[in-house]
Amino acid sequence: MSESAMRDYLDGPHKAARDVVRAGLAAHADLGDLAVRLPHDEYRDRILDLLLQSAADGLPARGYPKEYGGEADLGGFIAAFETLAFGDLSLMVKAGVQFGLFAGAILHLGTEKHHERYLADAISGRLLGCFAMTETGHGSNVQALGTTATYDEAAGEFVVHTPSAAARKDYIGNAARHGRMAAVFAQLVVGGESHGVHCLLVPIRDADGAALPGVTLSDCGPKLGLNGVDNGRIVFDQVRVPREALLDRYAQVDAGGNYSSAIENPDRRFFTMLGTLVQGRVSVGGAAINASKVALTIAIRYGDQRRQFGAPGSDEEAILLDYRMHQRRLLPLLARTYALHFAQAELVDEFARVFNDDRDEHDRRALEAQAAGTKALGTWHATETIQMCREACGGAGYLAENRLATLKADTDVFTTFEGDNTVLLQLVAKGLLTDYRESFGKLDPLGTARFVAAQAVEIAVEKAALRPLIERLRDAVPNRSDAADPDAGLRDDAYHSGLLRFREQHMLSGVARRLKGGIDAGDDPFDVFNRCQDHVIAAGRAHVDRIVLEAFQTAVRNAPDEIRPQLQDVYDLHALATIEAERAWYLEHGRLSPGRSKAITALTNELCAVVRPAAVELVDAFGVPGSATEVPMVVPSQHE
Amino acid sequence: MSESAMRDYLDGPHKAARDVVRAGLAAHADLGDLAVRLPHDEYRDRILDLLLQSAADGLPARGYPKEYGGEADLGGFIAAFETLAFGDLSLMVKAGVQFGLFAGAILHLGTEKHHERYLADAISGRLLGCFAMTETGHGSNVQALGTTATYDEAAGEFVVHTPSAAARKDYIGNAARHGRMAAVFAQLVVGGESHGVHCLLVPIRDADGAALPGVTLSDCGPKLGLNGVDNGRIVFDQVRVPREALLDRYAQVDAGGNYSSAIENPDRRFFTMLGTLVQGRVSVGGAAINASKVALTIAIRYGDQRRQFGAPGSDEEAILLDYRMHQRRLLPLLARTYALHFAQAELVDEFARVFNDDRDEHDRRALEAQAAGTKALGTWHATETIQMCREACGGAGYLAENRLATLKADTDVFTTFEGDNTVLLQLVAKGLLTDYRESFGKLDPLGTARFVAAQAVEIAVEKAALRPLIERLRDAVPNRSDAADPDAGLRDDAYHSGLLRFREQHMLSGVARRLKGGIDAGDDPFDVFNRCQDHVIAAGRAHVDRIVLEAFQTAVRNAPDEIRPQLQDVYDLHALATIEAERAWYLEHGRLSPGRSKAITALTNELCAVVRPAAVELVDAFGVPGSATEVPMVVPSQHE
Repeated sequence: MSESAMRDYLDGPHKAARDVVRAGLAAHADLGDLAVRLPHDEYRDRILDLLLQSAADGLPARGYPKEYGGEADLGGFIAAFETLAFGDLSLMVKAGVQFGLFAGAILHLGTEKHHERYLADAISGRLLGCFAMTETGHGSNVQALGTTATYDEAAGEFVVHTPSAAARKDYIGNAARHGRMAAVFAQLVVGGESHGVHCLLVPIRDADGAALPGVTLSDCGPKLGLNGVDNGRIVFDQVRVPREALLDRYAQVDAGGNYSSAIENPDRRFFTMLGTLVQGRVSVGGAAINASKVALTIAIRYGDQRRQFGAPGSDEEAILLDYRMHQRRLLPLLARTYALHFAQAELVDEFARVFNDDRDEHDRRALEAQAAGTKALGTWHATETIQMCREACGGAGYLAENRLATLKADTDVFTTFEGDNTVLLQLVAKGLLTDYRESFGKLDPLGTARFVAAQAVEIAVEKAALRPLIERLRDAVPNRSDAADPDAGLRDDAYHSGLLRFREQHMLSGVARRLKGGIDAGDDPFDVFNRCQDHVIAAGRAHVDRIVLEAFQTAVRNAPDEIRPQLQDVYDLHALATIEAERAWYLEHGRLSPGRSKAITALTNELCAVVRPAAVELVDAFGVPGSATEVPMVVPSQHE
Repeated sequence: MSESAMRDYLDGPHKAARDVVRAGLAAHADLGDLAVRLPHDEYRDRILDLLLQSAADGLPARGYPKEYGGEADLGGFIAAFETLAFGDLSLMVKAGVQFGLFAGAILHLGTEKHHERYLADAISGRLLGCFAMTETGHGSNVQALGTTATYDEAAGEFVVHTPSAAARKDYIGNAARHGRMAAVFAQLVVGGESHGVHCLLVPIRDADGAALPGVTLSDCGPKLGLNGVDNGRIVFDQVRVPREALLDRYAQVDAGGNYSSAIENPDRRFFTMLGTLVQGRVSVGGAAINASKVALTIAIRYGDQRRQFGAPGSDEEAILLDYRMHQRRLLPLLARTYALHFAQAELVDEFARVFNDDRDEHDRRALEAQAAGTKALGTWHATETIQMCREACGGAGYLAENRLATLKADTDVFTTFEGDNTVLLQLVAKGLLTDYRESFGKLDPLGTARFVAAQAVEIAVEKAALRPLIERLRDAVPNRSDAADPDAGLRDDAYHSGLLRFREQHMLSGVARRLKGGIDAGDDPFDVFNRCQDHVIAAGRAHVDRIVLEAFQTAVRNAPDEIRPQLQDVYDLHALATIEAERAWYLEHGRLSPGRSKAITALTNELCAVVRPAAVELVDAFGVPGSATEVPMVVPSQHE
């Protein structure tokens, strides 16, 4: 395997964008341990410096329209963003707040007057901003936010107000120290009528950094990680902003106090507005996958050198990564990191396609589901992988200088911010159940359950249409008759996707049946939904597992000859480990015989040994800049 | 359920010891967030103050002989120690280093002259000490340490020396700042002959805190957590100590340079010395279980109040802990925490019994295996539980002020210190394979494989003797014939332990067969062992799972009538969730039918709902002092 060929293939079409960020990170050799070395506020200010430097280097401009100094290269923008995760994750997150969420809200939710006035300054970092959505009382359930923006027709102004302690804006990046303006999500009240959540631009600090009248700012204080980001709280006391402060792409209020929107259904309007912010989830998922790459680069290089305990007939101890258990702990995670990398690359392509072509609602919903699923699996993967890498490095992994500590602390919140992972998988499953129909309703369980009940007939029809597919899968999947050769076809791509597709379809139809059954029986819809919640979430996960697997299959097919065999081995390890992890389900549903199930475990072990000799090359192909991994990870041999 | 009855039962015979520590922690209301508030060195010095306070309060004295001012209450000592984990884990670990490891080495490895001279000062904290075992190049493989202690007959002194960078003492608690003396583990060389690893007391700092001549001390710097402990490195350059510095309970060197030991086999001698230090593992396991209690107390109280998303027909949102998925994520972990609590209590009883009665080697080996297994499962449980609790509290869980951040960071290293968990489970399995015979050999894989090969005939005999038991189990376990009523007997204790015993025995005999088969076939013994390593470790885990389950069964049987039904529900949840987690194995081995496997998942869900109403009472029964959990966890209702 040529390392550079594999790296080129992983970098894909956005290699240049990634390399610019790599060079930038390499230029700041101190990035690895800022969190450890700098006092709290100094660390935050240093991250701001680096943020402004990245703006000067053109990172955010890549993702914005040419009219405002940008390059309109959405795919490259996300790829560059993700690559920031090779450095300091506080920088990645603060850049995400400023250039992704704040500037993104202006671009996607605002209109030309907002773009003209603010966009260039937001992209350059001259105007530092917050994305003030989450409230103390409401994280995931954005539709229930308490902050209000009430139109005062006489003054031609909106009055932004925090009506309760629960409605306080909380955990807001850039709010504690640097932000001058906030994109505030609030219930829009016009002429006494509430029109649901909309977004307005509200100045919060003056040029000297002091809070503006009516705005109370406070600091969330130290966090488990990401302490380079100044998260804070914002309370509004009847703060007035001009009518033009409303970001009015999807809904307008005229001077006379008339509210209008091209999207009549308030739920659809809300989800359309939220949908434009999908970029945040795409970026966080990518950053999590890249953080996993950093951890694996450290742990696999360490395991390839560190020796412990005696090998027979030798004074020298055995290398950690030659132990089966060490391989078992790290190499399936390496393979899954490859799989998620390719799934993320597909997602980024789709993101650029949907936004460049201004695609229809169906495509946008599909993109949102794909982003939600990849974010959930990518961030859980990061938590698991970094933990395993820390343990695999023993005491050395616990020292802050060795980076795993910071990685672990910084990535931890990824599983719950930009959408709690369990809520996101529920969203994925719901999208599948409703087949992305126009009537895409509320996120709340009641809405889902009722909707599914209404659609039950159609789902039954679909299920009937599906039956031939399932029959075909059943034929393709060796079952109880596999006793003769339990290994037959275990490395066959079609067999893998057949199993994962069967599982996905079976779970989805099972959920639909249970929901309908409960509703038909007259049970309380919330109870009906709640009884199935674990099933719903498992179905969402099964879908994303399948998407990720097939993205890897496509990547192997399209790979240059030079690296394809190597990549096929990594793919096989991923596929077998994925099926092994769910083998209980396949056994329960008659899709694996006991003998075949055991054969899958045996083959997964073998594939670990097959992949092991190339393990270091495979992590080197991630191209994590040296400054991030060439930390003083002490690996002296015992003879040193 | 009466909360205080449950708490009394959990506290058991050492309630008084636990309550003293609880009161001490409650008196220091600032304990929860020292790590966040104080600068690095100030935090370390504050922890030292608290350590000396705990000594003044009599915590360490409890565990030491009456002759040296102690109370000789070993069980109470460990219980008190574990309870420190309700406060600040740096305090628990630093106290462990001082009062457990350092003073423990003097007590268990030294003789009367050492006890007379040092023990009272070590217990009072007047003599601060280190436990210098781990080296940069050697963590788990202690027998391969590089540090040497060479006897100079002419001078009547030992010369302690660090011969290589890899032999540097590393991660040593108390070394960076406070320790004056170190219990140093080194290869003892007498008359040119090496006698393996022994322990000596070596002064490292003078009364002013300066390093003594020949001793180089450095600071490991910031760590992922436990930053109140001053971990450091020690390098010895031909440091001379008198002959009496050798802790000579198990081996002596006379003035004339004659080495003698009552234990002739060097391996047995080494493991006997190490075995006296089992207390450290017992304490860490207990601390990890108690850290899980703190996390669950926070997350379950939070989940019992926090609302999110709409319930049908109501303006009010649903309570998080009423969602099935939220129950699923937290309540089996709560049940397992109860299970581990009772297993730990059994272990502490056994520890006190073995050490009080000075029991024989067989009992000591059994205790070591029990301690290793409980430590491995308890610490992994803590990592998993605290992570889950953090996610279940969303953004609030990420703020340092809310304790979960610190808990997560502080407990992380528990999985790899005081014995790496995978190595420990290997040790457990090895003990079972060799049935704790006198010939208990080296820890290294080669030794294991050869030994097992030698014992293979005997194992085969044992297996034959076992067969009737397995047959009986098979009869007791409903299998394919359960289609009529897949729920039958699912809440039967004997069914649970039958399944877990079957699994344990099946795995152990399988491993033995594979090892013997490989050796018989003439394969390289290391390869033979390595091919089975995942199987060996899984067998160790299966054994400990069974021990934990049966400890819970015993605890339910012995519980007062008042709380038994409640405890039985929690037990059932633990048992079903444990079997569910391994249902793939049971399906593969014909011990569960697909229908019954699904029924187990369904019943686990139901049991979550059964336990849920008492969830808050169940965590309150842990008796975590208010200061540790009554942190400003913000849970305003949306109407506040």
